[in-house]
Amino acid sequence: MSDYRHIVRKWVKPEDLNQHGALFGGRLLQWVDEEAAIVAVTQLGTIDVVTRHMSEIDFAARADRGDLLELEYRVVGFGRTSITLACRVENAVTGQEVLTLESIVFVAVDGEGRPVVHGRTAATGGTERLRG
Amino acid sequence: MSDYRHIVRKWVKPEDLNQHGALFGGRLLQWVDEEAAIVAVTQLGTIDVVTRHMSEIDFAARADRGDLLELEYRVVGFGRTSITLACRVENAVTGQEVLTLESIVFVAVDGEGRPVVHGRTAATGGTERLRG
Amino acid sequence: MSDYRHIVRKWVKPEDLNQHGALFGGRLLQWVDEEAAIVAVTQLGTIDVVTRHMSEIDFAARADRGDLLELEYRVVGFGRTSITLACRVENAVTGQEVLTLESIVFVAVDGEGRPVVHGRTAATGGTERLRG
Amino acid sequence: MSDYRHIVRKWVKPEDLNQHGALFGGRLLQWVDEEAAIVAVTQLGTIDVVTRHMSEIDFAARADRGDLLELEYRVVGFGRTSITLACRVENAVTGQEVLTLESIVFVAVDGEGRPVVHGRTAATGGTERLRG
Amino acid sequence: MSDYRHIVRKWVKPEDLNQHGALFGGRLLQWVDEEAAIVAVTQLGTIDVVTRHMSEIDFAARADRGDLLELEYRVVGFGRTSITLACRVENAVTGQEVLTLESIVFVAVDGEGRPVVHGRTAATGGTERLRG
Amino acid sequence: MSDYRHIVRKWVKPEDLNQHGALFGGRLLQWVDEEAAIVAVTQLGTIDVVTRHMSEIDFAARADRGDLLELEYRVVGFGRTSITLACRVENAVTGQEVLTLESIVFVAVDGEGRPVVHGRTAATGGTERLRG
Repeated sequence: MSDYRHIVRKWVKPEDLNQHGALFGGRLLQWVDEEAAIVAVTQLGTIDVVTRHMSEIDFAARADRGDLLELEYRVVGFGRTSITLACRVENAVTGQEVLTLESIVFVAVDGEGRPVVHGRTAATGGTERLRG
Repeated sequence: MSDYRHIVRKWVKPEDLNQHGALFGGRLLQWVDEEAAIVAVTQLGTIDVVTRHMSEIDFAARADRGDLLELEYRVVGFGRTSITLACRVENAVTGQEVLTLESIVFVAVDGEGRPVVHGRTAATGGTERLRG
Repeated sequence: MSDYRHIVRKWVKPEDLNQHGALFGGRLLQWVDEEAAIVAVTQLGTIDVVTRHMSEIDFAARADRGDLLELEYRVVGFGRTSITLACRVENAVTGQEVLTLESIVFVAVDGEGRPVVHGRTAATGGTERLRG
Repeated sequence: MSDYRHIVRKWVKPEDLNQHGALFGGRLLQWVDEEAAIVAVTQLGTIDVVTRHMSEIDFAARADRGDLLELEYRVVGFGRTSITLACRVENAVTGQEVLTLESIVFVAVDGEGRPVVHGRTAATGGTERLRG
Repeated sequence: MSDYRHIVRKWVKPEDLNQHGALFGGRLLQWVDEEAAIVAVTQLGTIDVVTRHMSEIDFAARADRGDLLELEYRVVGFGRTSITLACRVENAVTGQEVLTLESIVFVAVDGEGRPVVHGRTAATGGTERLRG
Repeated sequence: MSDYRHIVRKWVKPEDLNQHGALFGGRLLQWVDEEAAIVAVTQLGTIDVVTRHMSEIDFAARADRGDLLELEYRVVGFGRTSITLACRVENAVTGQEVLTLESIVFVAVDGEGRPVVHGRTAATGGTERLRG
């Protein structure tokens, strides 16, 4: 795994809460997937990527309204048409782990959704211009 | 696994689409989790449940705007404080599989979020009155 | 009216609440209409249906955050191009009635929105494959 | 019915559309209820009002993305604890009627949701200060 | 500045709140822009307008859940292809000022987004029919 | 101005579009404010901050569905109780400027919303632990 890491911070807002006043597990997964897609896009240099696989998920601790969460992504590796990321979510104030995801796999696709070779083999700082 | 099955249908609406006009993987997981929680609540007879674990997930096919999806849940088994469900999502018109989840585990909790024994051992038709 | 009944359960979440912390009447109507459309689609075997009419509505009791509501639908009858449903909403824990709707009418339409004959005359279990 | 009329305009946005690219009937009802509540609050001079009743509803024409709708409210009458409004929704560009609602009834309530006498008997211009 | 004034009222709902239970500044700006666009459309008689400029903004007071806000718009002036509005937001119950915006400029555009002459020079009551 | 820069990327999704299929100006401002608040929180080391001021805003170019936007924040300076940020938004693929904001000011507050001295005088990498 490379040293590259990308951090996204998210507020837990009222619209994200379940009937107990805690963050919905499914809402957190929506964030994890959506922000991972942006990391994949930045690493592969194309906006045409789709989620293909997620490893199993343990919900370690709950998050509450007003919490600030940190979603930290790392690049696990590159396939010919794919990229694999890992994600760890923790509470930005307490440091408590909320969720860990060992792998989430994205595939670069063409206009008909068929996998295409992306040509990348190493994580970048993610600051260069994307292909449209 | 019991014969009990519960089906929830969802429209794919414009607000659920990603930049390619396809359903977000993360949005689908949000639905899978939220509706699974309602099944768990109905089976355990208490509204105090939390998501604890999800098995790995393959996104088999994409869904598009206007598609009607069927989320079919089955009860895999009961633990002392938990319930395990399986979920299969397919396109209600074509029957194509969109996603399969072998297990999603919910735990019954008390007001402080500690696991509590639920006393259930078999799936019910889900039509009886819940405990508040 | 047939014996067919279809139950949908909905959490009252923070985003559904009005300025008093109670469920908006209009939000409840949105759910009642959207889920009724799915029942109509399942019964008529086509996804091309539109809402045409709702009977008068009494809001019998309020619902609060964290409540789990049951929307129970029955098929009142079939017209040549239409289907009429009834809906009763109650609190899943207390059984208290929240709203009753004697009839909500959907019409099967073609691509230009003109009524089309659907050919159905009896409620089904709703498990067969739909026409696209 | 008084001469008072209050007009609210709403864009039909992508998030309001159903699977046919048309405005959801239920979303329109949500708007009709929510904006009517603001009219009721302005007329009764208190923010503590709840929806009690809606008369039957015919959906006369569909609305599409990008349409601008006009919701025109009139005061039908005042009860001791209630106010009755009428609403007509039309397309602001074509003038085509989308929906007409003969009566929507709101009740002024206290903190426990019990009806309270509001003391109003005539529609106002709606520009005075409200009671908190 | 003409005598024309247009008032829009908005509830502060749970989905509009930040981590402190107060209205997000950015959410308020979203309302101010969206409702101003409707005023611009009504005054220019065309639905094809885009936001071009906002003057600086001071957030004078916070708004909380359940507050009813009044957004009062005035027409500052007309350019050949533009219209300039002013907006003041206050709490409808206390009258306390929440935000003042000296100018928000909209431009009438054609299908390719190029400015077009609108031919309006004076504020209207805003009740006539729009051009599609 | 320090060398510190923080980049946030956002998809333009269907729910963010106006009647022309372009990103709402107000929605973009909502993102700019919400993400700026997270930068302010990270720099001041406390989650209790409120938006106080925004400089004037020119909307330079429109953004469309499927665009990926980059919101780049820089720290302009620190006051005793405040922090001032600058923001530039551009299209991540074309590099075209969408919006520039010279200053957005946040103030650290106590539980009653009164300004408090934050003690920070220089931008940090933003990776240390926050105070709750």
